[in-house]
Amino acid sequence: MPASVINPPRRLLFGPGPTMVDPRVYEVMRLPVVGHLDPYFFEVVEGVRTGLRTAFGTRNEFTLAMSGTGSAGMQAAVANFVEAGSKMLVLVNGFFGERIAEMGRRQGAEVVRLEKAWGVATVEEEAAEWIRRERPSVVAYVQAETSTGVFQSGEQLCAAAHEAGALVIADCVTSLGAMPVRVDETGIDVAYSCTQKGLSCPPGLAPITVSPRAMEWLKARKSTPAEWYLDLQLLTNYFEGARRYHHTAPVSLFYGLRQGLAVIEEEGIARRWERHRRSHEAFVRAVEAMGLRLLAAPEDRIWNLNTPCVPKGVDELKVRKRMLALADIDIAGGLGPLAGKVFRVGIMGPLATADHVAALVETFEQALVEEGFEPAGSGVQAVREGLLTAV
Amino acid sequence: MPASVINPPRRLLFGPGPTMVDPRVYEVMRLPVVGHLDPYFFEVVEGVRTGLRTAFGTRNEFTLAMSGTGSAGMQAAVANFVEAGSKMLVLVNGFFGERIAEMGRRQGAEVVRLEKAWGVATVEEEAAEWIRRERPSVVAYVQAETSTGVFQSGEQLCAAAHEAGALVIADCVTSLGAMPVRVDETGIDVAYSCTQKGLSCPPGLAPITVSPRAMEWLKARKSTPAEWYLDLQLLTNYFEGARRYHHTAPVSLFYGLRQGLAVIEEEGIARRWERHRRSHEAFVRAVEAMGLRLLAAPEDRIWNLNTPCVPKGVDELKVRKRMLALADIDIAGGLGPLAGKVFRVGIMGPLATADHVAALVETFEQALVEEGFEPAGSGVQAVREGLLTAV
Repeated sequence: MPASVINPPRRLLFGPGPTMVDPRVYEVMRLPVVGHLDPYFFEVVEGVRTGLRTAFGTRNEFTLAMSGTGSAGMQAAVANFVEAGSKMLVLVNGFFGERIAEMGRRQGAEVVRLEKAWGVATVEEEAAEWIRRERPSVVAYVQAETSTGVFQSGEQLCAAAHEAGALVIADCVTSLGAMPVRVDETGIDVAYSCTQKGLSCPPGLAPITVSPRAMEWLKARKSTPAEWYLDLQLLTNYFEGARRYHHTAPVSLFYGLRQGLAVIEEEGIARRWERHRRSHEAFVRAVEAMGLRLLAAPEDRIWNLNTPCVPKGVDELKVRKRMLALADIDIAGGLGPLAGKVFRVGIMGPLATADHVAALVETFEQALVEEGFEPAGSGVQAVREGLLTAV
Repeated sequence: MPASVINPPRRLLFGPGPTMVDPRVYEVMRLPVVGHLDPYFFEVVEGVRTGLRTAFGTRNEFTLAMSGTGSAGMQAAVANFVEAGSKMLVLVNGFFGERIAEMGRRQGAEVVRLEKAWGVATVEEEAAEWIRRERPSVVAYVQAETSTGVFQSGEQLCAAAHEAGALVIADCVTSLGAMPVRVDETGIDVAYSCTQKGLSCPPGLAPITVSPRAMEWLKARKSTPAEWYLDLQLLTNYFEGARRYHHTAPVSLFYGLRQGLAVIEEEGIARRWERHRRSHEAFVRAVEAMGLRLLAAPEDRIWNLNTPCVPKGVDELKVRKRMLALADIDIAGGLGPLAGKVFRVGIMGPLATADHVAALVETFEQALVEEGFEPAGSGVQAVREGLLTAV
């Protein structure tokens, strides 16, 4: 019998995702698969739905995990709620805003964009005014833009959209599990996410939640979506009441997500969010002590995804390779117009602790120095000087 | 720290899928995730692509596993290769033929159906004649129809389709890994499958292979597919040369599939197919000895999915529940018009051995007898009388 042909390198995943998986999640990934219509599977599904409601901050009945990655979540949101010929407004200030707009275009919608520079949040009043003027059917925005580190609160734009009779889609791929998503409080109609970032599970499922008013809209929708695999009405018949066969769900990933949500429940979601906020603040103070600038303004920062700008004269790829060589620490570079200009540093899940942030800062500083950067002050010292006592 | 909340029942999965997973596959499911752009991940992907080519029987460069289940494979095939307004012929004689036709309809194609009773293979000459007459852009058929147990060879219809300039899509969800799929020999342009049947892995990935002529067609396609998540040209840029980020692939499932393909390679694919054929024949002789009829004609039977008809006066659901209670053996019932009329018995992967077939037959016979069936002869005896010595 062949030994395992899988022998992955051990890395500390401090990138935007996939991030570190809780060991208790890995343990359940190898438990025996049951049938996709087995009562035990639906027990697991119910646990997933309940846990996701807590993480999303919603009471939406329609809350589940779809059998695809976070991008399948985006596809599902757009394919179900954007009709050909309808008017869709998209806030575009990063890679994933661009992607939503592209998906809307593919559905045949009239896509209107409100563009901002990558790294700059949209002023809510401006978005609200624009929505009142444009009167769209759907508004889409990215709550936590992984490509820039910018968080968009969404409250005023949601209110304006609802006044205009429009649905709101929010990309919560990076925020879910690591910071408050507040679906109901914000007024988001359709929120989707992934499992491999704030939820500390392997990638492969796309959590989604849909408000009752959006479900009503969907039931009244006259055209059939071209999308069959992610058709939410068909998925309702599978995952909710009727349990009618639709597809063979990836049972092992559901085991993992259920276990990951149990780990979160044990810690308490509010405590978990707070742990991420403190880790973020410790990291920010350390890099600012070194004299690095962060791309996102202080009031717009995602807690679990930091985007320090690459200092002048430093080759970001070399810094990242150095970090891998020094301590098996994997961070990411920028995408699109930010390639070579920012680092993307994810501090989430099992890594959002004082010790791990300290180790990260130490390696980051060392790699920067080795690549020619002269720090204004010591990041390591900033961390040591008690900044982390609060973490 | 919470103990595992996942404690699945142990069942012998003799249904159509998910089926038993090789223990060596489970072991790698819990290994540490690496990034979706990590060189190690692409090493795993290359191994998957090579192994899938062997299982599919193809030299197609474009061969990969998509990040969704078998139904996502169907969605990908139809969304990429069926344009709005084009003419699509579908052979419909079971649940999955119906599903392909529905997906074609959703893409806005003119769908023309060649219907046969569920359980009856289409005569290849008739299909070929029909294709020559209709002159479609695409022909789709199900090679191994899981709902009926019928195998469709496809050779003559593929030849006719190519003469007419049409592409051929074949659903190989149930056949891949358990019996020869022969993509190149048959002339199939687009074949897709799943991981949880003949490949003995957990569900969650959709193997797909595309012929060079179909890839050329795709590159020349003028309309952009509405489908973004499963857009094959975008996936090429991710999984092949450019390795450009598209989505975050479910790394753990790729580990599992890579390991599952290594297990298959070790046994040898031809030997594996033969093991499935012999297990199938042993089961068929045993159920025929009992006096049960099989739905599919002898020359049209899928090796790894058997459909014995429910004998008159017997409640199939009760038989299945009895089998679960007696020996934790899980078999399935019929779908649609075959609900209550057939059992669906999958004998695949680790269960396609003499011992497991004997145990299955024993339990099946006992459950049938307890539910009032009077066998013509003993299935257990038929198995014992040396039918299995060849397995």
